[in-house]
Amino acid sequence: MKVKEMMDKNFVFVSPEDTIVDVSIRLENAKRFTTPVVDNEMKLIGWITTFDITKGFRENKKLIKEVMSPKDDIKYLHENDPARLAVIETSKSRLVSIPVLDENDAVKGVIRAFEIVDTLSSLYEVKVSKLYEAMHKQLKGVTWDELMDAAAIVTTRVTGKKTKAKDYEERIKNSTFGEAIWTTGGLESFFVGLIAVGELVIARKVGKARK
Amino acid sequence: MKVKEMMDKNFVFVSPEDTIVDVSIRLENAKRFTTPVVDNEMKLIGWITTFDITKGFRENKKLIKEVMSPKDDIKYLHENDPARLAVIETSKSRLVSIPVLDENDAVKGVIRAFEIVDTLSSLYEVKVSKLYEAMHKQLKGVTWDELMDAAAIVTTRVTGKKTKAKDYEERIKNSTFGEAIWTTGGLESFFVGLIAVGELVIARKVGKARK
Repeated sequence: MKVKEMMDKNFVFVSPEDTIVDVSIRLENAKRFTTPVVDNEMKLIGWITTFDITKGFRENKKLIKEVMSPKDDIKYLHENDPARLAVIETSKSRLVSIPVLDENDAVKGVIRAFEIVDTLSSLYEVKVSKLYEAMHKQLKGVTWDELMDAAAIVTTRVTGKKTKAKDYEERIKNSTFGEAIWTTGGLESFFVGLIAVGELVIARKVGKARK
Repeated sequence: MKVKEMMDKNFVFVSPEDTIVDVSIRLENAKRFTTPVVDNEMKLIGWITTFDITKGFRENKKLIKEVMSPKDDIKYLHENDPARLAVIETSKSRLVSIPVLDENDAVKGVIRAFEIVDTLSSLYEVKVSKLYEAMHKQLKGVTWDELMDAAAIVTTRVTGKKTKAKDYEERIKNSTFGEAIWTTGGLESFFVGLIAVGELVIARKVGKARK
């Protein structure tokens, strides 16, 4: 996944000659705390946050160019950068948004923290049943019922609570990968549970084949 | 994981009697676009964004209480809510931050979008080798070399590119779960690959035991 697949292309941008008053109204209406400052060719020349605006109001400044941060002081990404870079920069530099440039330094989009939350959380929202369906498809010769039986046995063993295959099947229809990770205590633990199910179901399959 | 484990406890808060000028300086210094408004008992009574501040400056307002949003218009969470709720609210309502209350409606912390990015991305940063180590621990009687051999065989089969066990081992030391998901095309595909490795290694173990 690249930065350009994650960025917002309908972003607000302003000119260095715009007034602080006008930009304050535009940012309020668009609910944007930050915005890129661009020249006539859409090239990035600066960055404005609402902090620059409030400071400008107090100090009686008039134009955006008087209060903006210059390009050199800004974090930015290129549209073909891996999306992972946007995640790392947001987390490390605690940014609300990052401008995205093309090869000519023209602004093509903005990545905001909640777009990252959207992307990351969509992974969390994958249903656990989808993972079992993928497992079922991979493990040829194993039926869905055999898989659920094995999962119920492993769950009973790990939790100490008697779990039936039907109840397990019902549970994974509604539970997400994110919940499962938090419930089992981390990605590795969740994953070990699934491997244990795979191991058991394969052992049973081999056992059947021998008979 | 609960909201209280994810929230920032060192948050900025303001009083309804504070002046807009003072609060604008505090928010600029702390780099906070939003802040809760609390009474003397730390109870949440309103919310301020820098949009309220810029509008207040334009309209010559003086005090926070003249420009704040009342509590009824604010999204908030309780400290014992599941952390997942914070993720969903941030993503759905496109919020930069959400105040967190205790059972007496006192503000105990603030959850901001980049805290969520931090938490979610820590999952992405788990090394793929950690997952193989978990798998190795679970699959008793299978050596690490046998596991890497199986992984190299499955990778060769899936990608069509001859992959050696040693090269595969080197690669997973540096690659993360997040990268692996994006490379393989999603959580299910990544997972199917691992199950295929598990299946192969178990089949080989059973084959060996029969000899």
